[in-house]
Amino acid sequence: MIRTHEAGALRAEHAGATVVLAGWVARRRDHGGVVFLDLREASGVAQVVVREDDLAHDLRAEYCIKVTGTVRVRPEGNENPEIPTGAIEVAADEIEVLSESAPLPFQLDSAADVAEETRLRYRYLDIRRQEMAENLRLRSKATYVAHDVMRDLGFVYVETPYMTRSTPEGARDFLVPVRLQPGHWYALPQSPQLFKQLLMVGGMERYYQLTRCFRDEDLRADRQPEFTQIDLEMSFVDEEDIFAVGEKLFTRLLREVRGVELPERFPRMRFAEAMDRFGSDKPDLRFGQELVEVTEYFADTPFRVFKAPYVGAVVMPGGGSQTRKELDAWQEWARSRGAKGLAYVLVQEDGTLGGPVAKNLSDTEREGLAAEVGAAPGDAVFFAAGKRSESQELLGAARLEIGKRCDLIDTSLWEILWITDMPLFEEADEEGSWKPVHHPFTAPAVEDEDDFQEHPGTTNSRAFDLVLNGYELVSGSIRIHRAEMQQRVFDTIGLSKAEAESKFGFLLEAFKFGPPPHGGLAVGWDRIIMLLAGQPTIREVIAFPKTASGGDPLTGAPTPITGAQRAEAGVDADPEAEAQAGAGRK
Amino acid sequence: MIRTHEAGALRAEHAGATVVLAGWVARRRDHGGVVFLDLREASGVAQVVVREDDLAHDLRAEYCIKVTGTVRVRPEGNENPEIPTGAIEVAADEIEVLSESAPLPFQLDSAADVAEETRLRYRYLDIRRQEMAENLRLRSKATYVAHDVMRDLGFVYVETPYMTRSTPEGARDFLVPVRLQPGHWYALPQSPQLFKQLLMVGGMERYYQLTRCFRDEDLRADRQPEFTQIDLEMSFVDEEDIFAVGEKLFTRLLREVRGVELPERFPRMRFAEAMDRFGSDKPDLRFGQELVEVTEYFADTPFRVFKAPYVGAVVMPGGGSQTRKELDAWQEWARSRGAKGLAYVLVQEDGTLGGPVAKNLSDTEREGLAAEVGAAPGDAVFFAAGKRSESQELLGAARLEIGKRCDLIDTSLWEILWITDMPLFEEADEEGSWKPVHHPFTAPAVEDEDDFQEHPGTTNSRAFDLVLNGYELVSGSIRIHRAEMQQRVFDTIGLSKAEAESKFGFLLEAFKFGPPPHGGLAVGWDRIIMLLAGQPTIREVIAFPKTASGGDPLTGAPTPITGAQRAEAGVDADPEAEAQAGAGRK
Repeated sequence: MIRTHEAGALRAEHAGATVVLAGWVARRRDHGGVVFLDLREASGVAQVVVREDDLAHDLRAEYCIKVTGTVRVRPEGNENPEIPTGAIEVAADEIEVLSESAPLPFQLDSAADVAEETRLRYRYLDIRRQEMAENLRLRSKATYVAHDVMRDLGFVYVETPYMTRSTPEGARDFLVPVRLQPGHWYALPQSPQLFKQLLMVGGMERYYQLTRCFRDEDLRADRQPEFTQIDLEMSFVDEEDIFAVGEKLFTRLLREVRGVELPERFPRMRFAEAMDRFGSDKPDLRFGQELVEVTEYFADTPFRVFKAPYVGAVVMPGGGSQTRKELDAWQEWARSRGAKGLAYVLVQEDGTLGGPVAKNLSDTEREGLAAEVGAAPGDAVFFAAGKRSESQELLGAARLEIGKRCDLIDTSLWEILWITDMPLFEEADEEGSWKPVHHPFTAPAVEDEDDFQEHPGTTNSRAFDLVLNGYELVSGSIRIHRAEMQQRVFDTIGLSKAEAESKFGFLLEAFKFGPPPHGGLAVGWDRIIMLLAGQPTIREVIAFPKTASGGDPLTGAPTPITGAQRAEAGVDADPEAEAQAGAGRK
Repeated sequence: MIRTHEAGALRAEHAGATVVLAGWVARRRDHGGVVFLDLREASGVAQVVVREDDLAHDLRAEYCIKVTGTVRVRPEGNENPEIPTGAIEVAADEIEVLSESAPLPFQLDSAADVAEETRLRYRYLDIRRQEMAENLRLRSKATYVAHDVMRDLGFVYVETPYMTRSTPEGARDFLVPVRLQPGHWYALPQSPQLFKQLLMVGGMERYYQLTRCFRDEDLRADRQPEFTQIDLEMSFVDEEDIFAVGEKLFTRLLREVRGVELPERFPRMRFAEAMDRFGSDKPDLRFGQELVEVTEYFADTPFRVFKAPYVGAVVMPGGGSQTRKELDAWQEWARSRGAKGLAYVLVQEDGTLGGPVAKNLSDTEREGLAAEVGAAPGDAVFFAAGKRSESQELLGAARLEIGKRCDLIDTSLWEILWITDMPLFEEADEEGSWKPVHHPFTAPAVEDEDDFQEHPGTTNSRAFDLVLNGYELVSGSIRIHRAEMQQRVFDTIGLSKAEAESKFGFLLEAFKFGPPPHGGLAVGWDRIIMLLAGQPTIREVIAFPKTASGGDPLTGAPTPITGAQRAEAGVDADPEAEAQAGAGRK
């Protein structure tokens, strides 16, 4: 090693020792012939004192230097209790510039104010900042913990391919041309789902992997074209076994990375209850403001809008004093979510109701409404009426907005729960066709096994999610392992035999050879790390993330390719035409 | 869990217990109304005894079943000491078929004789075989050990991107079209080299990753288009620090996975010595038959072929009794390697020399030759003459062939060593241009730092390899971190500024901001696992490998894509033409 000591590990007991340190000039302060340098490296920061001008005169921020000197206790009154090395300083005898630094594109201690694009362009400087460095170190620590847990539980780490079969139906697959088979393409997998199920057929029984997944989605705020999952699958299990694994993993992650104790067994909530109470399949339980169903209450209402299959309400504490502009903004907000608007009443200080909806209600309805929904004078009450799930989702979104705007969320809490009994199918369009909520290998609930095809809209599945503070971190299920049942699911979602064969033929083939009952889950690794690190986006916990358009400002990826590259990769080969031409020549 | 006990864990002390097992019918034997089933699952095999025909009558090989029964000690004389559960059997009360199996494409216990293509086509059945299952479990165990070692050594696990910048010079990059930026492409990285160096610039100091790499090579016998590396990089280090990490990693891998003790510090051999003695930069030290240089010996030879810059020999013990056909085969072997042939003499039992070369030599040369090269009566001596390195490589290959044919290799040995002082450059063509042996970021040896550009052919590098039993498992180096030195390397290998900018511009830019001295290595993970598992190819230790043409017989990848897929992926977009058209419209 170029250094003898880690700068951040120096303490008073090192006083008198000759040390060689290596790191970066984080700050330089000149005080009448004496130069104070903050020397920063992975272990922390130490103060270096340079008495001779010659040694330090050309040192600027982010120079990489090697310092030979003597540790000494700082003069009384000069200690810095805010840093672990604050009791000492290093008197430099010799300084070697290992490499110079050009003027910085941004000051590292002000990077929070720098455009994200610039931070990504100079990510290597951004990573020198303590916050980013800590994010990456936290991610590493969490990864070690995850491996520990999986080993303790007897899981086998198996690497599955990244170059997999492309199918015409595989929308959102990234494609890779294959030079050795011109005109043929691999697809990058959206998940190892099919391979982990094959491993179960292969008798691996407990598989896991920390794996990259690829999805060519329109990038939304916090999506990445490549993202990381902890992926696992188990044989001969039911939901309870999978829950136990998830609970061990998250309990240890929270404990060992954040010092937070989660309950040994996580609370569970049925999907329907989550929708009824929170208008969300990933309820944030760190605050109240639960939805109140008022369908019955308005059963005989004169207000046409509330003559609906479902009417629900959510209360905004103190929302009664919002300005007209603020109330209009709520309408705009609702419309941006595809709703017509957001009906509301304002509970006046005298208990009467204001707002445009109030006058459409009957006297009785007005009279009892505040009590019915739990609103106090000064509150606003928002309503949604219409289809049950759509209305609940609107209210659930409003609830989250209320939580944020009214600062109701206790950010010291870690509220985790399993969402169970999720529906197996959802309507694919208005014409009564169905699609799987999860994926087509999810098993129906035991009680629906025999006849789900007759009532797809009311069939529960054996799928589940794990939700932490309103984020879905885990998605999993017990899978179908019987070919006959799989066929009924394909029939229900209108997947033809040819299409099923093209997409999953090899899995269906594998299922002919004694597949075991199995199930598993996948953990959104970027997102749990984001929560553990207390960061607002997953980009803060990814070393080299992409921007919203899929670009990397640092490397300039992606780029156009040359004609030679195209030809080499066989992008424009047409194997079918060539096969026909070949046949014609015979 | 569907089961209460693991079948392979049952012992005599379980006698009397009611158990529920789940697994596969590995074998069925009918003995006069009693059926014996070998029930196999991940933990092992247990014998199930079924007295009632009804229970077992439709069970065939590889049915997946659930057995409820009672453990009992086997009748005396029926124990099977060869399996851990051989003292007991399970008397079945109830058998439930969890899933049936179609007739198998091959019997699992005869898979060794099955075509590899067939094994890969039904990989999920292949993995049920004990040998394959053990290979994957060993790989998993080794992965756990690797993480332990890296954690103990303070390394930070950082995931680097798989979707990276494509450059026109990036031959052998797999390309990925980007739908969101039609006509733009990512490249899949051949290694995280550039990113790990950026992480060093970023101050991460100790990075590692278990990572997939992608290389679109013409597939040779034991190559895969995607393969796994343990990749690491360290700052403020010299070679000794990196050697120490490699030694800790491999020592623990061999100990914890195979129970083999390696020396705490591994032997080192200079590249030149390895070439001189073994004709290889990855010498297999498990046997002798070292090369003998006889350039001096033949300094005044009348034999024109031996008037060469280098003449070397290797002895084949007992090779003197080879038939004419066998000796001809050696010529064929040499020509298939691009040599003109392989000169040889046969040492007769009376000490005289036979073979066509002998008569071309002088009496003195004939007289002393056997003693000079260490050959005994009955041996053959092979010669190569010509350019030093080419001749040595030919003899090195002959040595390996001799080792195999004469069964000289002690396969119980684990011979590991570092190869050091590797050359920095090698000739790129006959016209005196140079290319890097390792990669262009490799630092020259300290003594060559200032003037390597003046003698590229004799410049040593700070690159090294780790070799185990003749396999190169690790490649690493101290990197260049000074822009000025990097430029001289680029100049030496004739890399233009434009080309360097296109390929590595972002790294060169990063090097302007105080890059630390750094170095690292990459471990060929598939290959070390192959050696640990005692397997002949890396395909045996990869769950779902590709064939030599890059195909996957199981999934059918790669496949042609449809016009719709092409359009969606933006494969045929031409951003430059569009930009021009756009400019034209202005």
